[in-house]
Amino acid sequence: MKAVTLPSYGGPEVLTLAEVPDPVPGPGEVLVDVVATAVNRADVLQRQGFYNPPPGAPPYPGLECSGTIRALGEGVAGWAVGDQVCALLAGGGYAEKVAVPVGQLLPVPNGLSLLEAAALPEVTCTVWSNVFQLAALAPGERLLVHGGTSGIGTMAIQLGARHGATVVVTVGSPEKAARALELGASKAVLYKEQDFVEAGPFDVILDNMGAAYLPRNVQALATNGRLVAIGMQGGTKGELDLGALLTKRAAVHATSLRARPLAEKVEIVAAVLAGVWPAIAVGEVKPVIDRVLPLGQVAEAHRLLEQSSHIGKIVLQVT
Amino acid sequence: MKAVTLPSYGGPEVLTLAEVPDPVPGPGEVLVDVVATAVNRADVLQRQGFYNPPPGAPPYPGLECSGTIRALGEGVAGWAVGDQVCALLAGGGYAEKVAVPVGQLLPVPNGLSLLEAAALPEVTCTVWSNVFQLAALAPGERLLVHGGTSGIGTMAIQLGARHGATVVVTVGSPEKAARALELGASKAVLYKEQDFVEAGPFDVILDNMGAAYLPRNVQALATNGRLVAIGMQGGTKGELDLGALLTKRAAVHATSLRARPLAEKVEIVAAVLAGVWPAIAVGEVKPVIDRVLPLGQVAEAHRLLEQSSHIGKIVLQVT
Repeated sequence: MKAVTLPSYGGPEVLTLAEVPDPVPGPGEVLVDVVATAVNRADVLQRQGFYNPPPGAPPYPGLECSGTIRALGEGVAGWAVGDQVCALLAGGGYAEKVAVPVGQLLPVPNGLSLLEAAALPEVTCTVWSNVFQLAALAPGERLLVHGGTSGIGTMAIQLGARHGATVVVTVGSPEKAARALELGASKAVLYKEQDFVEAGPFDVILDNMGAAYLPRNVQALATNGRLVAIGMQGGTKGELDLGALLTKRAAVHATSLRARPLAEKVEIVAAVLAGVWPAIAVGEVKPVIDRVLPLGQVAEAHRLLEQSSHIGKIVLQVT
Repeated sequence: MKAVTLPSYGGPEVLTLAEVPDPVPGPGEVLVDVVATAVNRADVLQRQGFYNPPPGAPPYPGLECSGTIRALGEGVAGWAVGDQVCALLAGGGYAEKVAVPVGQLLPVPNGLSLLEAAALPEVTCTVWSNVFQLAALAPGERLLVHGGTSGIGTMAIQLGARHGATVVVTVGSPEKAARALELGASKAVLYKEQDFVEAGPFDVILDNMGAAYLPRNVQALATNGRLVAIGMQGGTKGELDLGALLTKRAAVHATSLRARPLAEKVEIVAAVLAGVWPAIAVGEVKPVIDRVLPLGQVAEAHRLLEQSSHIGKIVLQVT
């Protein structure tokens, strides 16, 4: 099959489409003919050599895909060859085929195309596991989402607002602000002009900036507030005011999805199927897609993601 | 009544026994004739001017007491004049009488004296709410307790070990190490000689050192680890390696008990009554008391606490 390989680490130009051996589905796995995948920040880190795939994962980038089941591994029940699916992956989505543990499969939601479905697994699983499972956002609470028009941001706005939370986002442009408000945000802070702390306090903060925002994120937390860092775009080591955290009885969490053991991923995927899929099926929650590019333009897709001028997901069409 | 007042902030010598007005129990409160109270680090901070009582709390130090109910406020049911009780307080334990919301009362456990019962409320509520409710320590997990022979440390060892956790503590002397092992710790790290990180990793860390230990506490956390800071004896602002926290999918919590709203305290006290009191009643868990001093020697009690050569609680006998 064809897959995007990394002969070396570096800029987008190192992403190299090459002929590689087909994956073989193990027990409890299915082989998926990939129709589409989508680009994530973690793929950029992997390309740069900062984020190696966890043990047992395919070496190719790609943390999600959609497609059609081509073959069933040993002991697989409940899925059939020909089923249209999307999936959370530990890697290998930038390829024509990928082997997926059945617990990481999701059906294509009613009414969505396979291209649209490819934009869902990472953002729904990330937002659900962090904002709802880990931080336990409650209706009526205030949620701050940094990077409000990223793929994760656009999903966090929709799921937060639907849950009855007040969602505030940070964005880099008036165009992005307008889109965030359309999606359900109550307020969009233009971070280049205004300090987001002034828009607080917040019960839950979903952060992608790491160290750069840590002091202000802690300032912006409410009593019993939960800061959840899922990205480190502003560095990893920052100053933590534990005294302020104690006064607020607050918490700082930092997590990632990719390296979690299979059992935890299966639990998250099942929770997303129960908690998010019905809302997608009735059109209450929608994938937000900036554009679709062919897999051959993967380098261009990475450049676009790194420029951060996109809104929502950048999808790669594989076949 | 007599109470320990703070005419000014400063060293132990500012603690001044004086005649003050009797408290009046409000609706849902009882008036307790105090038999004993106990000394906490927070009392030292209050004496130094760094920890003002929360709104509505008595101005005198003292976060726990034991005694006899003298009068019932409006609407109090389930308690009677003459009942022997101990209580979690928002302040005012260093006094002959104190008004206590009924939800913060606990019966004196079977077989214990009132002097012994005075040593229980803060340590049981602090350990239970932080180690079991907040950090959700599970049987088989590894718990690190800093200050292993403090009042909180001696209770954390007993409750952690009884729960089936492996408890490691840090202590300052071989004598304290021996006492910690007697109480159920699996290992006592002499922190002046050995780095506690080498004894890890730990699923839960109960910390009283704040900033000074933050980098090493994060290093010592296991995957899915929870650091709970309840004291800032080593300062408040420290460096947090969010990248390490993310790799471990770990969390940093910081909390205190005193400033929590009544409803949260009531919930904690009820959980302690259900989870800890039965074990005390059968002698499985014991209050550890370094010594009992009369209230008139409160300054000496503070000096002893600040020297940190005690093991367990320092109790003050009021009447």
